[in-house]
Amino acid sequence: MTIQIYELCGADQKHLFSPHCWKVRMAVAHKGLQWETIPVPFTEVAATEGGDSRRVPVIRDGDNVVEESFEIAKYLEANYADKPSLFGGAAGEALSLQIVNWSVVTLHPEVAKLCLMDIYKALAPADQEFFRTTREKMFGCTLEEFSAKHPKNADGLTKALTPLEMTLKTQSFIGGATPLFADYAVFGALQWLNTTSSTDYLSGDTAVLRWFNTLLDMYDGMGRKGKLAA
Amino acid sequence: MTIQIYELCGADQKHLFSPHCWKVRMAVAHKGLQWETIPVPFTEVAATEGGDSRRVPVIRDGDNVVEESFEIAKYLEANYADKPSLFGGAAGEALSLQIVNWSVVTLHPEVAKLCLMDIYKALAPADQEFFRTTREKMFGCTLEEFSAKHPKNADGLTKALTPLEMTLKTQSFIGGATPLFADYAVFGALQWLNTTSSTDYLSGDTAVLRWFNTLLDMYDGMGRKGKLAA
Repeated sequence: MTIQIYELCGADQKHLFSPHCWKVRMAVAHKGLQWETIPVPFTEVAATEGGDSRRVPVIRDGDNVVEESFEIAKYLEANYADKPSLFGGAAGEALSLQIVNWSVVTLHPEVAKLCLMDIYKALAPADQEFFRTTREKMFGCTLEEFSAKHPKNADGLTKALTPLEMTLKTQSFIGGATPLFADYAVFGALQWLNTTSSTDYLSGDTAVLRWFNTLLDMYDGMGRKGKLAA
Repeated sequence: MTIQIYELCGADQKHLFSPHCWKVRMAVAHKGLQWETIPVPFTEVAATEGGDSRRVPVIRDGDNVVEESFEIAKYLEANYADKPSLFGGAAGEALSLQIVNWSVVTLHPEVAKLCLMDIYKALAPADQEFFRTTREKMFGCTLEEFSAKHPKNADGLTKALTPLEMTLKTQSFIGGATPLFADYAVFGALQWLNTTSSTDYLSGDTAVLRWFNTLLDMYDGMGRKGKLAA
């Protein structure tokens, strides 16, 4: 059976950039399951799977519909227990939540500072309007003001990645010798930037960049696709 | 057999404040092992257990001497495998390292900003001299300049704790239903502040404070001792 993953898309339906959707796609691939992407633009997200206030990612797996990336990861772990684990046990699941929260709180704002306008420009007109209205309310200023406020260099992101750089100097993945969901959670944040910006903000001889490239190459180089066409 | 834990102390040998030493003491207590503290002032740390450049914590367990808190946790896990786990498996150990690194990189500087002068004042004269020389070299300014630069309020620390607050709204401990080494690692950072400062920087109705108080009460309220006498 093929799992359907509803994923946020830009004006180009092949431009898949949502960090949370990338987490789920990597998790489904990790489990070795068949899947297909159903691209959803911003203005159609709420109505996904007959909902009225949904947020992507949403997956349909047969009769089951599951929303929110960590919930989906837990669903996959429970329902495909014979496939490679995403958490490595109950303790690993609990510890993963802290790493997921660190990524969302610390890395996501740094990525948003760098590529908010790039996301906006890559959307279809109706989605641009939706994005502008919701984000300007969230930030309390215009998209242009938000973008102008933040210099377009990697300093903030690099600083936020310091704990990860330390970890990846000791072990290949956050999960140890092989990746776990915690890796995909952090990968999602950086893939959000990678699929949207034409600037390579990750550069230099860093453990983070080596790790990120390894993850991009996994699962038939799945992460190399979905990038905004230059 | 009693494990000896060499722990950093102030002018008062009962004032035990090192975050890394607290991690180890909590880990030893978690394993239900007998231990005793050997207090070591800054100027005697390097020579611990016949060394010349040691850093505490160091433990002696029979013929084994182990240094550095994460290495000690791994030693305890491997050598007392029948006792409650500190990691919950190999994945948990790997994931814990990222949380340890997050704590050191993100929380430790915020704690240092708040209580550097308190630590200094609590040391014996020879240790004060050592502390001043090493820290002023590290910070590139005098202790007094460093302290004056940073306002004595909880804003920076509270912000740094945001991912943890999110996690502890969902589950009782970083480790899930019960604490793991990752909990003790973060506890150590906050206990460094708690044992040294007379100001309660953790306050209000927060999940972090409830969690911290729970950990302070564990193991016969061990964390309630070691605080600088008011």
